[in-house]
Formats: sequence, structure tokens, C-alpha cells
Amino acid sequence: MGIRDAAYPGSFDPITFGHVNIVKRASERFDNLYVVVVNNPNKKYLFSLHERVEMVKKDLDGIKNVVVESFDGLLVNYLKEKKIYNLIRGLRAVSDYEYELQMANANHMLFRELEIFFLMADTDFSYISSSMIKEIASYNGDVSKWVSKFVESKLQEKLLKK
Amino acid sequence: MGIRDAAYPGSFDPITFGHVNIVKRASERFDNLYVVVVNNPNKKYLFSLHERVEMVKKDLDGIKNVVVESFDGLLVNYLKEKKIYNLIRGLRAVSDYEYELQMANANHMLFRELEIFFLMADTDFSYISSSMIKEIASYNGDVSKWVSKFVESKLQEKLLKK
Amino acid sequence: MGIRDAAYPGSFDPITFGHVNIVKRASERFDNLYVVVVNNPNKKYLFSLHERVEMVKKDLDGIKNVVVESFDGLLVNYLKEKKIYNLIRGLRAVSDYEYELQMANANHMLFRELEIFFLMADTDFSYISSSMIKEIASYNGDVSKWVSKFVESKLQEKLLKK
Amino acid sequence: MGIRDAAYPGSFDPITFGHVNIVKRASERFDNLYVVVVNNPNKKYLFSLHERVEMVKKDLDGIKNVVVESFDGLLVNYLKEKKIYNLIRGLRAVSDYEYELQMANANHMLFRELEIFFLMADTDFSYISSSMIKEIASYNGDVSKWVSKFVESKLQEKLLKK
Amino acid sequence: MGIRDAAYPGSFDPITFGHVNIVKRASERFDNLYVVVVNNPNKKYLFSLHERVEMVKKDLDGIKNVVVESFDGLLVNYLKEKKIYNLIRGLRAVSDYEYELQMANANHMLFRELEIFFLMADTDFSYISSSMIKEIASYNGDVSKWVSKFVESKLQEKLLKK
Amino acid sequence: MGIRDAAYPGSFDPITFGHVNIVKRASERFDNLYVVVVNNPNKKYLFSLHERVEMVKKDLDGIKNVVVESFDGLLVNYLKEKKIYNLIRGLRAVSDYEYELQMANANHMLFRELEIFFLMADTDFSYISSSMIKEIASYNGDVSKWVSKFVESKLQEKLLKK
Repeated sequence: MGIRDAAYPGSFDPITFGHVNIVKRASERFDNLYVVVVNNPNKKYLFSLHERVEMVKKDLDGIKNVVVESFDGLLVNYLKEKKIYNLIRGLRAVSDYEYELQMANANHMLFRELEIFFLMADTDFSYISSSMIKEIASYNGDVSKWVSKFVESKLQEKLLKK
Repeated sequence: MGIRDAAYPGSFDPITFGHVNIVKRASERFDNLYVVVVNNPNKKYLFSLHERVEMVKKDLDGIKNVVVESFDGLLVNYLKEKKIYNLIRGLRAVSDYEYELQMANANHMLFRELEIFFLMADTDFSYISSSMIKEIASYNGDVSKWVSKFVESKLQEKLLKK
Repeated sequence: MGIRDAAYPGSFDPITFGHVNIVKRASERFDNLYVVVVNNPNKKYLFSLHERVEMVKKDLDGIKNVVVESFDGLLVNYLKEKKIYNLIRGLRAVSDYEYELQMANANHMLFRELEIFFLMADTDFSYISSSMIKEIASYNGDVSKWVSKFVESKLQEKLLKK
Repeated sequence: MGIRDAAYPGSFDPITFGHVNIVKRASERFDNLYVVVVNNPNKKYLFSLHERVEMVKKDLDGIKNVVVESFDGLLVNYLKEKKIYNLIRGLRAVSDYEYELQMANANHMLFRELEIFFLMADTDFSYISSSMIKEIASYNGDVSKWVSKFVESKLQEKLLKK
Repeated sequence: MGIRDAAYPGSFDPITFGHVNIVKRASERFDNLYVVVVNNPNKKYLFSLHERVEMVKKDLDGIKNVVVESFDGLLVNYLKEKKIYNLIRGLRAVSDYEYELQMANANHMLFRELEIFFLMADTDFSYISSSMIKEIASYNGDVSKWVSKFVESKLQEKLLKK
Repeated sequence: MGIRDAAYPGSFDPITFGHVNIVKRASERFDNLYVVVVNNPNKKYLFSLHERVEMVKKDLDGIKNVVVESFDGLLVNYLKEKKIYNLIRGLRAVSDYEYELQMANANHMLFRELEIFFLMADTDFSYISSSMIKEIASYNGDVSKWVSKFVESKLQEKLLKK
């Protein structure tokens, strides 16, 4: 862990091809990329933290120098403890951008040494979001263009057997 | 149903003069305009599907070649089944626009033959939203500038007799 | 109360240094500035109306010509009743701006004599929001850069003793 | 000149009904409203400073407590010299908003006592801009909905007799 | 010409694959699609009106019910004269969107019967602009992903032989 | 030059404290940071390429592992030639963001191995732009909060002795 490591945090509820694309790109530029599955007690998730970590690990399997972890406290505490000074965030729409600006400033005020790198989503993935995928899957729509077979089967299990 | 038909989907919770304006304009350009009252089991509505359809029918009464329907599955399935290849969406603010871009791309990936036409709200209606109207009505504020007398009475019934 | 008075409404759940900055600036330009703690029965607050008013009063103590009040009806009714013709709103991000445009238009249609003045947040405060502060405080993060000691202690009481 | 005076600066090339609306609203809230026709040597104007001042004076004639002036230096110098501590700016689109944020910050850093009040354009005027009007007039299009008869005749003189 | 015809105006300086995509999609929904190469005497173009029309014709060759025309007056005058009541506009970024809103409102005020349909650019083309292509071509960069071979050769002729 | 090097291109007409802040932050995360002063023959600059490079070198003097260069061709050609696979871009407003998205996509299509990292401007610098500084300096306004003494003197020389 050090100046050449980075963290990529997210809910991953569930992980999409858009997330996988960011992980692949970021992992090539850092020694270790910590993919951190975040758990916020005030948010409602479709999948449990255990299930989300399982899907992330499955989808990122084989990408070297990627470490999947989970955390349910304040992100900057995790980063300080692990001595990770770089944060990766993906950007899509303008509304993303403003929320990210706000969070970047807050994180920077809480952890001065932290640098936040924003990567633009590739055009193929720029309109994917986990929430849209869940909505389509809940109607038994085809989501195979946006998530892996494993995630697709998990979505069907969760949403259609209810 | 065919290449000259279009669908205009929405929650219509409740229908506003902004919606009516879009319906009038769109109905003049297509053979049939299907106004589809959508029911998403994960969303909370003030009015039941039955009540929303009733208000939409009342407010659109007299506009020829308009058909009011309801649907509670994935919109593209409805369109494919009905062989409707054109979708009408109203646009207001920039935040609308980004959500619409995302949905347009998802719908296009699920139904390649679909074309989505965006109509800008007329300035008189560009700041109306169903949620704002519900908030004002809940305080017994005057909403007669934005909804019909029928919808106004339904709002009073629902919100004030509680 | 008159043409030289203004109201500055908000949830203040809790009050931040960003709010205090707007109050200080606005109070210098009007005879009386009514800081109105709004209570919307459909919204969930962390702090009760009583607690929010208490924190606002404490933080604004000593700024002359400021009156702290609370109200839980339609804002324009409060303004009409009090004969306050000027409304102060703070602006931060673009998404704020669009919501504010919508509300400004609605309020203007309900109260023609009302003028709405928007003040830009100072850069030091442009990324502060009450919801972000609550999230950080819920993880026992340091929020002393954004709220007063009194509000900080209230946040700890509320969030950590749960 | 004092804490109860305000300035409303602009190019006014030419003045539109949108500008007039802002002047009317702002003049009711301040003791004196200084409408300042700005001349930037690096910008190209259709009308000379003299012509722009003439049109502004004609269109604002009869609105009491309005003073029309012109200035071609740095705006904050004008304000400091005149001891005017309030600036009025009209806001329309999101792109306006960002430019205004930038200028507001710069002006605030150059003149700490200055307060900048933003007024939203009324919906009837929110899509008017001087440059659009000039483009339409240059093709002899009808601009009578957006400018006064006097400005219309000046536009025709300037654009069509060329 | 009639209610089932539409116009798609633009500078086309030069035509890109993004424009071709919009033309293909729009031509399937209308009886005739008039692609109107606009010439604004106040704008500077890289290609002459004659050259722009030539490239548009070449690139759209074989798409039936498309008519290529040129016009250098006020667009609404062209539409009124031709009795074309539908306008097609492509949308990409948020900044596009605001300019389009402004123009849509102006055009609507000048020609009440006109309806303006906005089509979102396909993701593959959402980041293409004629100006970016000209900049890249001016450095002899590869633009074959964004324009046809014919346009590419015209760009080289114009930009590199200078 | 390699996977651990990055380039930070710009016009730097002139360099501001905002640019210096990005350089400092980025230089800590890469082996070498190439600050590339770009010269576009189609753009008008206040300062010559030589003068801009001089100011950049002066302001960045002492920051280790920073190399200042100039280039007047297509940026990706420079990067390919130098085997630099990382590009740094600063982000401020939403309008920046959209232009950057467009350029990022174009650059990515022309150089597949390139990764683009966006850094948010610190709040202290988020409203600084070279063009605003030039405008203020042209009126002999105080720009010492935004640029170094050396740049300030160069601005005075250039703008006031005219």
C-alpha cells in the first residue's frame, strides 16, 4: 500500500460492465487497485453486502493486481488506515459530476493527502446504471448487454422468484 | 398500429396541463397516439392506476386519435406487442434531459426499430411538475393554473380529507 | 414588515456555516430578515422542528435584525400573511439551480408581488450540504469545518447514541 | 448612492423586453437603480455605445428611480467610485449560470463589500437574447414580440440598409 | 409538402456520420425529409455552400425520400414557403440542449404551426462535431471514423494544401 | 517515458495559480509530468508561444519531475511519439466537462492506449480562468490573487503599454 495504490469504491448493487471497464483501465495504471464494496446502513440495497462482494469478485476474476474488499464506515477512514492516497471515480452524466464535485471536496477536506482521479465512462457504457438495470430486470427484460451471465442469473433469482 | 403510430408513456400522477399540451401537439403528427399510464410496482403513487387513467381520459376527452391505455410491465414489451415504433417524450429541465438520454439508450438497445421523439415543453408549462403540484395542493394551495377542475377536485379529495 | 423585509426559508436539518454566511450577507441588505424553519409533513428530518429552530437560533445569535420563525404550511401563505415581499435563496450547484427555477416560477404564480433574490454561496461553502454533513457525522467523521460546535454536539447526540 | 442603491450592468446591444422586465422588478426594491451600459473595447457591438444608451433610455423612460449611465472600464471600479454595494444580474439558462458564478466570484474578490443579487427571468422572457434577436432581424424576421418599436426600427436601419 | 414532411437544417461544414445517422432515422418516419444546408452570412465556413451541398448529396445518396436543398434566409420563412410543419434537430450535449431550447422557442413564436422533434444522437456518434473533425484534420489526424471517404478527401484538399 | 509518465497540455495564456495547483498535485503521482504548452494556429493568443513557455517555466520552477515543452501539432501525435500514455486534465464548470468529454472520446479513438485522468480544481481556484484574468488586467484591475508576480508584470507590459 502506498502512493502507487488506488481505491475504487462503490455500491456495486450489482456490478455492471461499466464498472468492469473502469477497473480494467485503472488497474493498469496503479500497483494495486482496491475495489471497495461500500455498505451504507442508511441505504437500501437489492443485494446483501455478501452477495455484492461475491458478484464483484466473480466479474473481476483474472484481472491482476485487483483486491476486492468491503467496508461500512467512512471511506476516508478506510483509506487513511490502509494508507491509500488515490481514489478512482467513474463519471457519466452532468448530474454525476456535481455530486462527485461535492464528495471530492468533502473527502479532500477530511484527508488532505488524498488525490481523486476521475475517469470518463467509455461511450459504450456511458448510459448504464445499476438502478436502470434492476428496473429492467424486474420486468424480466434482457440485461445481458450490461451485466455478466453470473450477475444476470443473480438478478433473476432475486427479482423474479419474489 | 404501425409506423405512423406513437406512444406517450407516463405516470400521470396526476395529469397536468403540460401533459395535455404535449398530447395535443403529438396527436396532430401521428395516426394514433397511445397515451400509456405506466404502473411501476416499486414506485409509490398518490393516485391508484384506476384513478390516474380516469383523470387522463377525462382531460384528453375530445382530442381525436388519442387512445388511453395502462400497462405495468416493461415499456418496450408493450411497444413491441402493439407494433408501435415511435415514442414521444416531453423535455423540460437539464436534469430531465440526462435521465431521458439514459432511458432512450436503454430502450433503443432493447428495441432497435424504436425511434424516440423529444418535444420541448412550451414555456407556459416548462416549470410544471406533478410532484410540485401535489406539494402545493397538500397545503390547500391554488393549483388551478396547472391542472383541470376535475384533477383539482380529485387532489382535494385525496389530500385534504386525510 | 414591508417592502424592505425578506424571508430566508429552509429545512436547516441542521444549519451549516453555508446557511450562516447567506444570513449574514442578506441581513445587511434588508430591514428585517425572517429566517423561516420549514416543516414539511411529507419529509423525514433527522432533527425535530423544535431542535432545528434551537440550533438556528443559537448559530444566528448576535446577528441583528434577524428573526427566527417556524412554519409548516405553504410558504407563500406565510409570506402573504406577514406581508413579506422578498425571498432569499442560496444557490450552489446546477441541479440546485433548476429546482430553484421551478419553485421560483410556482411561487411567483401564487404570489405575484413576490421577488426572489438568489445569492451565490461563497466558494468556501459551495460544496457543503446538510445531507452530506449528516452522512459524515453518522460515521463519526469530523464535521467541525462545516457546522458550529453546538450543532456538532447535537449531531453526535442524535447519530451516535442510537 | 449607498447601501440601498443597486447597479444593473449589461451590453444592451440592444435592450430587450427581458432586460426591461428585470429593471422594473429591481427598481421597486432599491432606492436608485443604476442601469449601466458597459463598453468593452475587446467586444464587437452592432450598436455604438451612444446608440445603446439612447435605446435603453427610451425603453426605460417613465420607470422612476432608474438612472441610465455608461462605463467602459472595470465594473468594480465604477461601483467603488459610486459607492454602489449591490449588483443585479438576470439569469436564464444553465450556461448563463456558470459564467455568472465565475464573474460573481471574481467581482467579490475585487470588491469584498459587494453583494450580487440574481433574478430569474420571467418565463415569458427566459428564451430571449440580444444575439438571437439580431440574427432574426438580420433576415428581416419579426422581432416585435421581444423588443420595443423604437429598438425594432433601429435594428432595421442598422441591419437592412447595409 | 405537408403535415407528413419534415426539414433537417444544418451547416454541414462538413457532414459527419452523426448527421447521416439522424437523416436515416428521420427519413423513415416522414414522407419527405428536406435536408437544408443553411448559409448564414455572418458565420465563417470552411467549405463554400456549393461544396457543403455537394458533400451532403454524396453522403446521403441512396437514402430515398431525402431532398437536399440550400437556403440562406430565415429558416422559418423557408418552412412557411415550403409548407413544412415539422423540424428535426439532433441533440448531443447539455450545452446543445440549451441553445436548442432557445431556438425552438424563437421558431415557435415565429411559426405557430411548427413542431420541432428532437432526436438523440446514437452513442457511437454523440461526441462527434464538425468543428472537432476540422481541428483534427487540420493536423493531418485520422478522421475516417467520423466522416466518409469523400468528405475526408475534401478536408485534406482544403486544409493541407493551404 | 512510459506507463508512469503523464502529460498536462494547455494554452497557458497565461498560466494561473489554478494550473500550478493541478501541476503540483499531478506531479506527485507520476514519474515525470510533461507540461505541454499547445499552439493552435487557428487560435489567437495574447502571448506568443515563447512568452507562454517562459511564464510556465518560471511559475513551475522548483517542482521536481516536471518537464515543460511546447507543441503545435495534434496532441495525440505528441503523446504517441513520446510514448506517454496518461493525460491530465483539470475540470471546473459543467461546460468544461462536456467539452472535455468530447475531446476525451476523440483522443481515445485516435490513441487507444491513452488514459485520461481528470482532476477537480480546488475550490480556491475553481472560478479562475485565463480569459477572465486577461479581461480584468486589461482594465488595470488587480489580478495578484490569481497569477504570480511574474505573470502579472507580463500582463501589464502586454495590455497596458498598448
